[in-house]
Amino acid sequence: MICLFVATSSSNGLAALLAREFDDKIVRIEKKIFPDGELYVKIPPFKDDYAVVVSSLYKPQNEHLMELLLVLEALNGLNIKKIIVVIPYLAYARQDKRFLEGEPISVKVVLSSIEMNGVSAVITVDVHKEDSLKEWLNVPYDNIIPVKEVAEYFRKIKNVKVLAPDKGALHRAKLIAESLGTEYDYLEKFRDRITGEVRILPKNLRFEGNNILIVDDIISTGGTMALAARSALENNALKVYAYGTHALLVKGALDRLYEAGIEEVVSTNTVLSPISKISVHLSVKESLKKFL
Amino acid sequence: MICLFVATSSSNGLAALLAREFDDKIVRIEKKIFPDGELYVKIPPFKDDYAVVVSSLYKPQNEHLMELLLVLEALNGLNIKKIIVVIPYLAYARQDKRFLEGEPISVKVVLSSIEMNGVSAVITVDVHKEDSLKEWLNVPYDNIIPVKEVAEYFRKIKNVKVLAPDKGALHRAKLIAESLGTEYDYLEKFRDRITGEVRILPKNLRFEGNNILIVDDIISTGGTMALAARSALENNALKVYAYGTHALLVKGALDRLYEAGIEEVVSTNTVLSPISKISVHLSVKESLKKFL
Repeated sequence: MICLFVATSSSNGLAALLAREFDDKIVRIEKKIFPDGELYVKIPPFKDDYAVVVSSLYKPQNEHLMELLLVLEALNGLNIKKIIVVIPYLAYARQDKRFLEGEPISVKVVLSSIEMNGVSAVITVDVHKEDSLKEWLNVPYDNIIPVKEVAEYFRKIKNVKVLAPDKGALHRAKLIAESLGTEYDYLEKFRDRITGEVRILPKNLRFEGNNILIVDDIISTGGTMALAARSALENNALKVYAYGTHALLVKGALDRLYEAGIEEVVSTNTVLSPISKISVHLSVKESLKKFL
Repeated sequence: MICLFVATSSSNGLAALLAREFDDKIVRIEKKIFPDGELYVKIPPFKDDYAVVVSSLYKPQNEHLMELLLVLEALNGLNIKKIIVVIPYLAYARQDKRFLEGEPISVKVVLSSIEMNGVSAVITVDVHKEDSLKEWLNVPYDNIIPVKEVAEYFRKIKNVKVLAPDKGALHRAKLIAESLGTEYDYLEKFRDRITGEVRILPKNLRFEGNNILIVDDIISTGGTMALAARSALENNALKVYAYGTHALLVKGALDRLYEAGIEEVVSTNTVLSPISKISVHLSVKESLKKFL
């Protein structure tokens, strides 16, 4: 199989890890910024039929997106049979519908402008809502959740139950719990009919005597996870662990999470951070095999 | 005529000047940046059939482009019959072909991603090479050069001849000279056969006894213009004036230009700067009339 791993400046080492899995080479893009602020990219010479472009769209999102689009356009000028784009972290994934009139579907803009540049397939990692994104792509699309890798990492914890901080995150918790051979649940808001107090409680699961692993897609400010952790500890969970695929870590998120009593916070290398302890490259490899 | 002028944060007051010409209103986009760095826009409610979006793509180019794309996508969700985009300064216009293998046609990426979002017509102001851009748009396109406005501004100078700093900028010099009723020329490199020295000289024009107005599209570092000014003064021009449509002014450009002996450096409001003395809105208005 002839292919080529083209890393943009936001590929996070993932391009090289993937290239190694396929016994292939990685091509580093030449990138510079002109004095007026415009981006310039150039792809060094090579002779391959397939290109896999790895580009994570974390901060600065708009610059990373532009770099990816320019790289794709440059590949269009070369003699490539198939271009596959791997987006470990997809920016704007949470603005996936018009919540209010007058708003854009931002992720549609991102995906359409990527697809437009001669792309044959797109792979994302654990996007906020997979189904809503499929609508905006006409090419084959795969979203991977690194279930095996996460389960492997947390297998060391005994009596662990998996908890989604809300119903929307339940599918991820279910997959990881099944891989760990344990139970899962999500948190719901309950209003006390007498005091009027709002409490966040698990739908079915009992916390007593169990370690709890909270799993979510994005750790942004960490507010949602911290709330979930406090709820678990107040309800007599032994220890609380937290996993979020993408560690954006804005505004002191880690402080907030450790203050809430979480034992360990773990993330992947889709966005590089001090808690990026899990690599997603093996799951991405399996997905890539379908398209190559 | 029912239309609506939607200003992005880089519209530079041009949207309001245009709205005033059409006795119409301007709608200001709500814009914020999320803590993780993602852009958010929202268009306030309105009831119009046509939208004119004014968005100048100067620095930070990638953020301004993303803002424009999100605004266009938001307009797609509203009941708009026609969206016309006015781009006073078009970023990436100079990377309009593959100068080297492995390079992208960057301006194609910019124009295609704009057009893709339901746009009916595009108006630009004095782009680097108009013909090469037409290739990348399928919708009606107009590029205006504010010839009347520039001629009006410099009519005060007696015995003025118009000079393009190189052959590529000649069409602009020709239009402005014709409007001023005077002669024009461009600079060429000559190599002295005996000394080997390279000199920059006008192709035909004599500088003696004349004031010289150098005209170009972009004032970036000002290097090209400074060189042209020195050449004119060394060849006995009386005074030298300089006009560039887009004042990017990077790396001390104004110092460089005044050091070269230029009397006055003038620009337009496509990019706001201390030398933006000419407004392009009347030329844009004429162009808009064709599409509304």
